Parts: sequence; structure tokens; C-alpha cells
Amino acid sequence: MINSSLHLPNPALLTDFYQVSMAYALFLKKRAEMPAIFHIFFRQAPFKSQFAVVAGISEALEYVEKFKFDDDSLNYLASLKIFNQEFIKYLKELSPKLDIHGACDGDIIFAHEPIMRIEGPLALCLLLETPLLTIINFHTLIATKAARIKEAALGKKVIDFGLRRAQGFNGAISATKAAYIGGIDATSNIWAAKHLDIPLSGSMSHSFVMSFEHEAEAFDCYADACTDSCILLCDTYDTLQGIELAIKKLRELKKQQRITTLGIRLDSGDLLNLSKKARALLNKAGLNSCLIVASSDLDEYEIARLNKAQAPIDVFGVGTRLICAHNDPALGGVNKLAAIYDHGHWRHTYKISNDPAKTTLPGPQAVMRFMKDGLFIFDQIFDPQKALNLSQAERDAHYEEILLTRPLMKEGKITGFLPTLQEAQKRTQENLHHLALELKKLDYNGPHYSVIIDSAFHDKKARKKEEG
Amino acid sequence: MINSSLHLPNPALLTDFYQVSMAYALFLKKRAEMPAIFHIFFRQAPFKSQFAVVAGISEALEYVEKFKFDDDSLNYLASLKIFNQEFIKYLKELSPKLDIHGACDGDIIFAHEPIMRIEGPLALCLLLETPLLTIINFHTLIATKAARIKEAALGKKVIDFGLRRAQGFNGAISATKAAYIGGIDATSNIWAAKHLDIPLSGSMSHSFVMSFEHEAEAFDCYADACTDSCILLCDTYDTLQGIELAIKKLRELKKQQRITTLGIRLDSGDLLNLSKKARALLNKAGLNSCLIVASSDLDEYEIARLNKAQAPIDVFGVGTRLICAHNDPALGGVNKLAAIYDHGHWRHTYKISNDPAKTTLPGPQAVMRFMKDGLFIFDQIFDPQKALNLSQAERDAHYEEILLTRPLMKEGKITGFLPTLQEAQKRTQENLHHLALELKKLDYNGPHYSVIIDSAFHDKKARKKEEG
Repeated sequence: MINSSLHLPNPALLTDFYQVSMAYALFLKKRAEMPAIFHIFFRQAPFKSQFAVVAGISEALEYVEKFKFDDDSLNYLASLKIFNQEFIKYLKELSPKLDIHGACDGDIIFAHEPIMRIEGPLALCLLLETPLLTIINFHTLIATKAARIKEAALGKKVIDFGLRRAQGFNGAISATKAAYIGGIDATSNIWAAKHLDIPLSGSMSHSFVMSFEHEAEAFDCYADACTDSCILLCDTYDTLQGIELAIKKLRELKKQQRITTLGIRLDSGDLLNLSKKARALLNKAGLNSCLIVASSDLDEYEIARLNKAQAPIDVFGVGTRLICAHNDPALGGVNKLAAIYDHGHWRHTYKISNDPAKTTLPGPQAVMRFMKDGLFIFDQIFDPQKALNLSQAERDAHYEEILLTRPLMKEGKITGFLPTLQEAQKRTQENLHHLALELKKLDYNGPHYSVIIDSAFHDKKARKKEEG
Repeated sequence: MINSSLHLPNPALLTDFYQVSMAYALFLKKRAEMPAIFHIFFRQAPFKSQFAVVAGISEALEYVEKFKFDDDSLNYLASLKIFNQEFIKYLKELSPKLDIHGACDGDIIFAHEPIMRIEGPLALCLLLETPLLTIINFHTLIATKAARIKEAALGKKVIDFGLRRAQGFNGAISATKAAYIGGIDATSNIWAAKHLDIPLSGSMSHSFVMSFEHEAEAFDCYADACTDSCILLCDTYDTLQGIELAIKKLRELKKQQRITTLGIRLDSGDLLNLSKKARALLNKAGLNSCLIVASSDLDEYEIARLNKAQAPIDVFGVGTRLICAHNDPALGGVNKLAAIYDHGHWRHTYKISNDPAKTTLPGPQAVMRFMKDGLFIFDQIFDPQKALNLSQAERDAHYEEILLTRPLMKEGKITGFLPTLQEAQKRTQENLHHLALELKKLDYNGPHYSVIIDSAFHDKKARKKEEG
């Protein structure tokens, strides 16, 4: 699996300037190497979803493993005339010796749960904060959007058409990768298909049709070049006329038995009405197995509406609203310090805020998930250095325990299981099967999935407050 | 200026699969080399804005100039077992011989106006359609967002903090580049600052403060490392207490006269109220020239609200809502065929749709802008092969005429003026000065800027309709 970000020169500079300024301040006071513990988490799942699908972990770990300031980057930092030579030398010798525990691509995660627990020297943790967030926030956002779209599609195929509306090429590649983890079936992006081994898909465009004097000529020309699949675009001029012309061509092709997959694509107008008319016309012509592909500003809500109204659409092409995570175009994942080794002992830290959702938990954290009869029942955020805090009733229930915060990296080397993209997609599907049906509904408004925070975290806060 | 997309391997594969399928169909029928004319335009400006700021043109032209299928890409396409060997050879020898006319980075453009007119072989135009749209759509979207934010800031500084919420690293780099064209003053993204020569900016994070036992120690440590600028983050615990502590430190620093720029940053809470309190406390302490930097989910609306209420904020840090174009995360720019040279003559083409906004204009197009007394008065979309269609009154008005559709590329070589990033930013500012004030208002609801479509285009459509 290719990591497109690593093709940029000076990858270590893909961070916020304040991370280097702070690292410098710490370095001058001999605090740069103080052991620290951070957690990456989000306070609210995107799209008013009850859950998020984790993605970007493999890419983030690869970024960390290869992290190194090259000479060109160091010369640039030196040229700013802010940092002394000793610090530049420190950066030159800095190796990414982090220990990381966390979730894998394809895991389901809930608000406030650590996606990653990062342990290492304070300055290094700060320098890597921004790139880790950039990678994990965007991938997790898009994987979650894709999972929602795929759920709404009720098992029908979903194809990513988003490249032209993406946030640069790398934005498109990352989005397609994450969307595949989330569950999409194929992409129109050739680069992504080649480098990520994702099935390719595509039909034809209006401009192609318009380049011929007659629509039928365009269909003839296109069909002659097709091998295993031929999908004809019907809405360049009058859609119903386009469907009739397509049917004429598809009947010919069916007789020839040369092409396996035949179909039409509708890219505008009232997709419900048009797909029903198209299905009736196709069936009347004996083309019952011809597919209807629909596209045009689709997202999970529109797909759910079409499915509910029993629109006979077989394949959904989703572009803009998938690739830019329409409705909620950023996941607000953060990375917060939870502990620091200072003056010979660990001090647990947390942020206070007037907004309770913005306070953080002190000390190292891990997540255990409890499953019964194939369903996720509840999660517990606990201190990995201590035992789980379970009631007798919870013990007696004999839940299957799934540790979500697993070892991923030791001293800067990847040690954990990194699923392939295909394995990650399968993990997502399996995990979604274990999630209660109502939590996957688009309009779900009931109680959240139960994430229990071990009372020890609150006790620590209370103690700290008393101490002032 | 670096073009980050060109660092990817196989850049020619950054296109939709259907472009290659269609090119193949055309190739088999000897239609691939038919001369064609396309236009890139959008049907609606983003964010309910009256205008868009063009960006990405330089990057797009560089992409076209370097366009080439490498052997690895060709081997991949051959491995799909869809295309014959002659076509693979055709792609191998394909050089990007396009003629392009259009706007430059920093131009103001309105709905339906061609951003680019692209002339060249039909198949080549299709293959390049997706990458051109990917680059121009996203850059133009973000430049427009940045221009709106900068207008709302009323001359105050705006800094891009968006890297961690960007759509991959390339998404962040493209966004920062475009945001600079749109008018932002600085960025926290070191990579972008180095490679694009944009001023760097940044302060400190909550985690840095939390890594010390006492907030005051964190301020001491940070200040000791500062050279020309020291901005202290005040809201890690109790914001007002944080401000008091910061003031103590800033008074010391002021006396030392070591650091030029001093200030505080507020990153949460009621920014209006807190900034007023902070300003009063700073002034009382004789720190009248200390800056107040504010951040926390800012966008043009929030900045306008704060400015209207006279919040004494000097610098706005804008992250998520700039980098992901909050509210409208994609520009729906399209590329449509307008003419094709077929059977020895040019045939003008256009798309028909039930939605009048989705129909297109037939034949080659260019835009002339008419200015008077330093204000843009109206634009005309005209046929570049014909004279402008002006009334006698319009002629008598002696407008200054600005051709917006200028020569940019000839036979695949860049021939037009490509402004540097700094020049593009200046162009944006100058252009915005020429735009009537009300068209820049966030809540403007009056008539659109006048874009007159030469009646010859409609005549052509009417004639075609009569011919059936």
C-alpha cells in the first residue's frame, strides 16, 4: 500500500511552526526528553453519527517510522535565525522513538475514546502531533462517511467518483483509500486503483456524447471499445430518448454476448422517477439483467431516500459529497497530554474548560470493548496499568472482552498488526455487523452507545481540585 | 513555487478511468485527434458569494506542461487487458499539445464565465479534464474563502492554522497556497512557508502549558526561547487567571526590550467578552501595544460578528473552517465541450437540461470586463473570433476594457504571465478594490454583478433547435 505523503520532500516539516518553537523552548530548559503520554481522540463523531470508523493508522505509523529531519529542512529552520545550533543538531539526531498503542484501520470508535496512546519524549510528541492528526482526522472522517453511505445503500454497489472535487490529488488519494476502508466497492481514480489495488469503474461523459453529431453514434463508438462492461450515459439531451437509444444498443450487445456487464447511467433529474421508467423500459426490452447506475450529488440521505422509495437503482456513483465529507468536512480530532514524567515521578495532567466536553482525562488510557451474542454491549475507558473496574454483575455476564488499545509501535518501530486495505475493509464490515442496528440509522436520536469512564479518572481530578 | 502534485509517481494516472475508456473508443474510430474546444466554469460561486477568486491556474498549467504517461503507468493500463497495443503506443507518444486561454491566479470571476478555454485534440482534452478540475476547483474554492475571511477581518491579520484538519498533506499545502492568493497573511504550516515563501506564525499549545506544574513556569520557559515574537496562550485552565499571569510575564519582557512583538492568544470561550477584558487588563498594565490573537472555530461570519461588536482582537487564527471551506466544501466547477471539428467544419455543441442553469453555451468563449472610475461595471461573454457586441451607449461610455481570457499556453508550452504567489495575492487585493462594496458583503442579497452573454450564443441555440 503506497503512502502518498512520503513522496513529498522535507516530510518532517509537515507540522505547525509552534511545535518546533515549543520543542526549542523545552530543549533550552532540558525538558525536551521528558517522557510524556498523549492521546488522540475526538469529542464528537462526525455527521451526527453515533460512531466513527478508524482509518489512517497504517499511514500514520509509516509516517512516524520514517520521520527524520533532512539537511534541507534543518538548513531552512536554521535560516529563520530563531534556534541555536545545538537545537538544530538535536533535531538532526532526533529519531522517532515512540511507543504507540491504539486502534487499527477498520475499528469502530466512539467519542472520547483514545484512538492512539502515544508515549515518548515530550518534544518529539509535539513535533509529531500535527502530522498524526492530519492523517488520522481526514482518513477517519472519510471512512466514516463511506460506511454511512454504504449502510444506506443496503448492499448495493457504491463507486467513488470524487477526484475532480477533491482537495488536491493527495486529498483525493487519501479520501479514496479511506472510503475503501469504510466500504466503497470501486473508484474512478486510476492512480488510486493502481497503487491501492482497488477495483476501477467508470462509464462515459456528456462531452463524449456531445462530440458526436448523434447520440446513437456516441453509443456505437463507445460500445465497440468495451470489453467486459458497457454502461451508457443517457441524460446528455432528453433522458427518456437517451434511454430508448441506449436500449436499442444494449439489445444488440446482449445478442452479441461479447460484454458481461451492460447498463445505463442517469446523472441528473428525478432519479427515482427516471430509474423506475428506465427499469420498466429495460425489462420490456428483455434487458432485465441490465444495471441502472445513478449519480448526481448523492450522499447517504439521498441514497436512503431512493432506497426507501424502492428506486430500482443497482449502483450508486458518489462524488463530491463523499470526497469532501459533505455536511461535516472536518473531524475535530485532538491530541492531549495526559501525563508527564517530572522531577522523578509521573504527573497526570488534564485540561479544564467551562465546556465539560472540552475537559480531558488525566493519565494513561485504554479501551476495552465488551461483546455478547455478537453485539457490542459497552466500552470501558480504563487505566492500562490497572485492572478493569467491573461490577460483579458485569463479571457474571461473561462478556467477550476486546482490547481496542493494542500495541502498534515500540521505540519507533512498527510492531502491531497493520491490515492491508482489503483486510481493513473487511474489518469495518465485521465491526459494523456487531453494532446494534439502531446505532447505524441515519436519523437515530436515542441514547449513545455506552462508553463507561473508569471512576478512577474522575477521582484523580477531584483529588487534584482539592489540592488546588 | 513548488508544485506538490508533481512529486507523486505516475501523475498522468491522476484522472478518472472513463477518460481513458472514452479516449480509447475515440482512438479506435480515429476521432481521438479531432480538434475540440472546452471551457472550465462554475454555475454558482461558493459560500453564496457573488464572485470567486481564481487560483490554481499556475499549478494546472505546470501539470499540463509536464503531462506524460510513463512506462509504469502504461504497463498498468496494458495489464487491465481492455486496451489494444496501438492505443498504449498512442498514449506513450501523447504530448500535451493544448492551447489554453484564461484567467490568472488572483482574478475575480463570476458564474458561467470561462475560467479556461482549452483547445486541442479531443482525447487529450478528456484525459486532462479531471486533473485540471481537481486543481482549479479546490484552489479557487479556498482562495475565495480566504478572500471572504480577509474582507471580514477589515485589514486585521489572518493566519492559517488549518494543517491538522486538512485533507491530507497535499490538501493542506494546496489550501495554504490558495489561501495566500486569497489574502491570508501567514501560516503555521512550516512546509508551506518554506516552499511557498509565506510568512510563518505560531504561538504555543495547551499541552505545552500542561507539561509544566504551574502555568507561569510554562510562560517563563517559552518566553526565554522567543526572539522576535512572543504570544502566550492564556486559556489552558482559568482564562482570566491565565491573562493575569501572562501580563506579569509580558511586563517583564517589555522592560527587557528583547522581543519586538508581544501578545496573548485566546483559543476558547466567549472571545468578544474575553478580548475586551484582556484589552482592558493589558492597557491598565501599560501593555497597550501587546497584541490579542484569537482562534477557535473562526470563519468570515464569526470574524464579522466580532469586528462589528468591536472586539479588540488584532490577529485572527483561522483553522478548520478555512482549510476545509466550511459551509461549502466543494466548488462545482465543470469542463464542457463547446465545439468540435468534424467532417471538415466546426460544430458548436452544448448541453440541454431541464434545469436552465445546467445548459451550456455553444462555441468558443471569452470574457471582457468593462471598468469605469476604478470600478468593475459589467462583463461580457463573447465569441473571441468575433467583435464585441456593444450598444452605442456602451461605446460612448468609454469603458476601460480588460480581457480576462488571455493566452496562457500554446502547443503545450506555457506562454502566458504566471504571477508569483506574492504577485497573485496582490492581484486579488487590487481586483477586490475594483469590486463594488456591496458585492463583497457577507449578507448581500441584491442583484448579481452583470454578466452579459452575447446574444449570438442564444441565436445559435435557437437556430439549432429549429433545425431539430
